[in-house]
Amino acid sequence: MAKKLTVTDGVKPIYDIYIRKSYEELLSVLDSMNIKTKKICIVTDTMVAPLYLDEIKNMLHGNCKYVCEFIFPYGEEYKNLDVVRSFYTTLINEHFDRNDILFALGGGVVGDLTGYTAATYLRGIDFIQLPTTLLSQVDSSVGGKTGVDFDCYKNMVGAFYMPKLVYMNLSTLHSLDKRIFLSGMGEVIKYGLIKNKEFYNYIIANVEKIKQLDYDVLENIVYESCLMKKEIVEVDALEKGERALLNFGHTLGHSIEKHLNFSMYHGECVSLGMIGAAYISYKRNYILEEQLHGIEQLLHQLELPITISNLLVDEVLSSTKHDKKVEGDIIKFILLHNIGDGYIDKTVTIAEMKAAIEYLLKE
Amino acid sequence: MAKKLTVTDGVKPIYDIYIRKSYEELLSVLDSMNIKTKKICIVTDTMVAPLYLDEIKNMLHGNCKYVCEFIFPYGEEYKNLDVVRSFYTTLINEHFDRNDILFALGGGVVGDLTGYTAATYLRGIDFIQLPTTLLSQVDSSVGGKTGVDFDCYKNMVGAFYMPKLVYMNLSTLHSLDKRIFLSGMGEVIKYGLIKNKEFYNYIIANVEKIKQLDYDVLENIVYESCLMKKEIVEVDALEKGERALLNFGHTLGHSIEKHLNFSMYHGECVSLGMIGAAYISYKRNYILEEQLHGIEQLLHQLELPITISNLLVDEVLSSTKHDKKVEGDIIKFILLHNIGDGYIDKTVTIAEMKAAIEYLLKE
Repeated sequence: MAKKLTVTDGVKPIYDIYIRKSYEELLSVLDSMNIKTKKICIVTDTMVAPLYLDEIKNMLHGNCKYVCEFIFPYGEEYKNLDVVRSFYTTLINEHFDRNDILFALGGGVVGDLTGYTAATYLRGIDFIQLPTTLLSQVDSSVGGKTGVDFDCYKNMVGAFYMPKLVYMNLSTLHSLDKRIFLSGMGEVIKYGLIKNKEFYNYIIANVEKIKQLDYDVLENIVYESCLMKKEIVEVDALEKGERALLNFGHTLGHSIEKHLNFSMYHGECVSLGMIGAAYISYKRNYILEEQLHGIEQLLHQLELPITISNLLVDEVLSSTKHDKKVEGDIIKFILLHNIGDGYIDKTVTIAEMKAAIEYLLKE
Repeated sequence: MAKKLTVTDGVKPIYDIYIRKSYEELLSVLDSMNIKTKKICIVTDTMVAPLYLDEIKNMLHGNCKYVCEFIFPYGEEYKNLDVVRSFYTTLINEHFDRNDILFALGGGVVGDLTGYTAATYLRGIDFIQLPTTLLSQVDSSVGGKTGVDFDCYKNMVGAFYMPKLVYMNLSTLHSLDKRIFLSGMGEVIKYGLIKNKEFYNYIIANVEKIKQLDYDVLENIVYESCLMKKEIVEVDALEKGERALLNFGHTLGHSIEKHLNFSMYHGECVSLGMIGAAYISYKRNYILEEQLHGIEQLLHQLELPITISNLLVDEVLSSTKHDKKVEGDIIKFILLHNIGDGYIDKTVTIAEMKAAIEYLLKE
């Protein structure tokens, strides 16, 4: 049974999330968006373009006013303002106006960059998300965070800007490199840890099926993740409060990611960051040692890193200061009161963070 | 009697506009914004910095957490993404976070660039407008349009993003170059022409006092202009409908501005654009020939251009195609059914526009 969610602004519906096995229904879903009168620019990267661009283009051909594409090189290092500028130039040359629409076909980098461009071109045009990676399906395509990196600072420049539609074809997960697929599981486990113990246990019970890409299990995992994200962003779209929970594992995770110059995947760094946060929670006697080890075991089974070598503790620490989760020198750190019960803590000390980073170095 | 307006989103108040004779009350107004806990970056240009920067800095000193400044060269040509990038770098180096605030001290260029940076740094931080020119007081500081130019396209990149406060000190108008002051009158006359015949007649009756910078008349003019702008943006913040009325004179005006490579002031180009739009309205028998000449006479008395030489008609025409007011090849042109009664017309032909531009060349 195919699944659908509707994200609201707390009251009115804003956009739908379709979870499907193929792109078969995309055209009928787009029908209600009046695409006959619109130009469409499909945005994708050099990794995804050979896989799905033609399928989407052929589907749209004759059903909208005009289709073009903007393809940029694969990789986080291209999520920057230079690529956005060259994208603006493409849109100007193709005479895109406020009535037209952008399609983000790809992973988180494609979605974030397309959303940011949509938010700022002509002070805002429509865009839709067609996420092709697990990470973008369960996290970045939902909730309206858009942005690009700036001088090595992740998502330093961006906007809150909602898509008009999120349509995910789960079969795209089969074309993912295994390491990229599994890195997306970092965010999935995060939802369980901060919000839903039952879901966390479901993941533990289905590790093998997840690794085999069992369709029904994947559908459940993506659906439940999107549902939790939707519920959080509906009450706090602009991250004034509860949305910060979603940063569990991200304070240290981002710093590690930056420190390693983005040589590890986001979900892998989040895996390490979650262990760091769980370690602080354990040291404060919120969770048991066996719960900490349980988290490590699950991440390890999903082939996510749980230790790291060659990390300069002080450098990682100092870069947390530039994190968006810092406000007036107070770091908003997400800790666990229990499995499935994350909360925002503003009392985490430098010493606690240092100990957490050292714990990751234990091997 | 000092004046104040409150701009709402149609229901809830969003920000206040203070119209004052000095900066005396600014600090008490800021009090309610909890600036004690905030870093403030005052953004201004090389023209305004020597005039008011120290006054504002001294006032803030000791009343907020930290004050710094970002000064960029005066001129429309610096309203671009390179300056925005260098501004991001300043904010990163000064460790600005989401709790901090930007002050836009200057004319439209400063306000637009500061607002755009505020909209996009860390996905949005607060900013306030301290407009120092007539144009920015009656128009650009109110309504939340922010943006920068891109490859010679005006405001091609931007966002709708509301300030937290607009505080205008009318005495700053005394320091303006006369030509810059008068160019702001172009937008003032626009409000009368599209919305308010009585106000239009008030301007005609007070031309001399306006040129003498009579405080009471200026206060009335700024207040009435802000009131009309506020009423329009409250019903249509995102320019889906009625807000487009404010583009009266801007379709041809922008094209002329661009064609002249920004060597004439915005208000001067709007003056020409308004005559072009009034001419089309006259040729369609909406307004009388004497009304058209009345508009020209008023603009001329205020030393705004009413004719122009050396304009390449075809180049001006072709650049209207890139205007944001174009949607799906249909140009939304603002015409007058009567003085004080503007409307959005979607039937203006290339031939009509061409005749209007040729009319401007009549000398």
